[in-house]
Amino acid sequence: MKDLDIRAVILAGGRGTRFWPLGRAARPKQFLKIAGSEPMLAETVRRIRPLVPPRRMVLVADAASTRRARRLLPKLPKASFMVEPEARNTAPALMLATARVFVENPEAVVVVLPADHLIRDKARFLARVRAAAAAAAREDALVIFGIPPSCPATGFGYVRHDRRAGRTIGGTEFYPVQAFKEKPDAATAREYVASGSYAWNSGMFVWRAGAFAGEIARSAPELEPAWTGLVAALKSRNGAALKRAFRLVPALSIDYALMEKAGRALVAAGDFGWSDVGSWSTLATIWPRDAAGNAARGDALALDARDCLVWNPGRLTALVGVHDLIVVDTGDALLVCGASSDQKVKDVVAALTGKKSHRKYV
Amino acid sequence: MKDLDIRAVILAGGRGTRFWPLGRAARPKQFLKIAGSEPMLAETVRRIRPLVPPRRMVLVADAASTRRARRLLPKLPKASFMVEPEARNTAPALMLATARVFVENPEAVVVVLPADHLIRDKARFLARVRAAAAAAAREDALVIFGIPPSCPATGFGYVRHDRRAGRTIGGTEFYPVQAFKEKPDAATAREYVASGSYAWNSGMFVWRAGAFAGEIARSAPELEPAWTGLVAALKSRNGAALKRAFRLVPALSIDYALMEKAGRALVAAGDFGWSDVGSWSTLATIWPRDAAGNAARGDALALDARDCLVWNPGRLTALVGVHDLIVVDTGDALLVCGASSDQKVKDVVAALTGKKSHRKYV
Repeated sequence: MKDLDIRAVILAGGRGTRFWPLGRAARPKQFLKIAGSEPMLAETVRRIRPLVPPRRMVLVADAASTRRARRLLPKLPKASFMVEPEARNTAPALMLATARVFVENPEAVVVVLPADHLIRDKARFLARVRAAAAAAAREDALVIFGIPPSCPATGFGYVRHDRRAGRTIGGTEFYPVQAFKEKPDAATAREYVASGSYAWNSGMFVWRAGAFAGEIARSAPELEPAWTGLVAALKSRNGAALKRAFRLVPALSIDYALMEKAGRALVAAGDFGWSDVGSWSTLATIWPRDAAGNAARGDALALDARDCLVWNPGRLTALVGVHDLIVVDTGDALLVCGASSDQKVKDVVAALTGKKSHRKYV
Repeated sequence: MKDLDIRAVILAGGRGTRFWPLGRAARPKQFLKIAGSEPMLAETVRRIRPLVPPRRMVLVADAASTRRARRLLPKLPKASFMVEPEARNTAPALMLATARVFVENPEAVVVVLPADHLIRDKARFLARVRAAAAAAAREDALVIFGIPPSCPATGFGYVRHDRRAGRTIGGTEFYPVQAFKEKPDAATAREYVASGSYAWNSGMFVWRAGAFAGEIARSAPELEPAWTGLVAALKSRNGAALKRAFRLVPALSIDYALMEKAGRALVAAGDFGWSDVGSWSTLATIWPRDAAGNAARGDALALDARDCLVWNPGRLTALVGVHDLIVVDTGDALLVCGASSDQKVKDVVAALTGKKSHRKYV
């Protein structure tokens, strides 16, 4: 275990409109201080730090997010930042990052961490990652963390696994992956959860770089030209060739492009208090709430008000005779949204984008 | 009619907390641009201007409101501003202002106008005031404008009048006053409105200064020492004596202190689109609304939202999946209030006043 060369690949790109008006095109979710006291990206780095030193971290993002990330994380070496030629889903990003690790050390184990997730039990998270790294190295398997579903959510993809073939490695349960499922409808989600054979797809992966290369060769040969091209371009430090190889990767998620086809893919139990912090109403389950169920960042006064979420730091918010509202004030823009309507916030952004006079709010 | 010396007494004092957070202790309702494009006080002055030149206007207010009013109304002569020694209800304020007019010309007709009311039909308002001035002068009567009730409101006082003794003077209906009633409960309000003998007490009065003095002598001798003192102090320009006389007036409304006791008191029909603009939800009946019933000052975007009132000038407000809300953003403070809870806004101010750290918001 101590001999494992563990690398953290942090996915720090992505736009996201669901936290508007706090989240903007130039300030996506991973840069917001919504889950804790730090931006989510900084918390992601801090969380994995006990297992991975900064020089072994690779941060993959578009150019704009990379600039912002470098300002946020001045202690990360410049070489840790890897700019995606363009945002093209997770298969291109993860083939690029894994090729980078592969060129340095094919035996290194890659831990893929989205930069905009919350994990409440940090100690258990580290234990699970350690176990997954050991399992991935020992079994040459591609590992995905599956989150034990706490409800029949329709906002996540699911991973079906073989319950009867479970094993415990390093105190952590592992199961063979059977299938990846897109976001289901409500009835299907209820079936999934009732069956006990489905976990939420966390987007967190663990694999040995060499095993990843091996699975491409064995199970997904259509990715081979892109992979070979990425490795060659990284070895020769040829930027133009790297871009060309990157564009050869299909714009798919890594789940469909590789994981589902792989001969040895495992689900690891992600029982560490995970949340994707998917929208404003998610924060109602994360922020401390008062006796009436109200949660606020900023000074709030509630009179006959319950179950409201307020973001209005540095200012006073008075809630009177209201319930189940999301209130977000950023100084230039104000959102007042029903708690069950927060999926429509992206429609606000779409409407604003369509009007020239309103684009400044996007 | 042309010979009448009409004076406008504008009541511009008063605090008011019902428009918090826009209205503050230092910026009460009469200084807010909530009903039209100008502060309500400026609209009150502009409205009566065709009938009363600035030199015949008397603006009565506390010292702070007077300072603010002088900045707002630079064209009003300095002599028009009359500072109340302290705020003590309408009987002291109106005895003070009427004494001032009485000293100048006992034949002058005083028209009392609160500075924080809305009147939609300005031409009819002027016609009614003209008729009331003529009636007051001819019949030596104290006149109050009674608003024909459009609903059994519980937020107003009522005036009972003798329907059978109505007369038309100058195209305007006048009835003898029978009684002044405090704000009723809902059942009583329904009875009042059904009877056809009750009007809302508008707080707008018309009387000849000499007739006012005569009624005090005849019908309310307990006011005589204060009245005599006010007149004497104004004649001798003795500020200390004026304050002493002012404090002799009981801290009552003029309705109870004098009108109800007067031998000749008339109700004039106030059918000119009056509103006291009593709270945020009143504005929903005044501001133009879109097809979904939303009304906004400032840029508003409504998605699946209806019947909301927004004050947020210069900024964007997005309403998503909400209805019947009052949203007021003043930059330092934000109110989100259920439309039927706006009477509780004053409780917010009371709560803030009680906390030292929050007094800056009052």
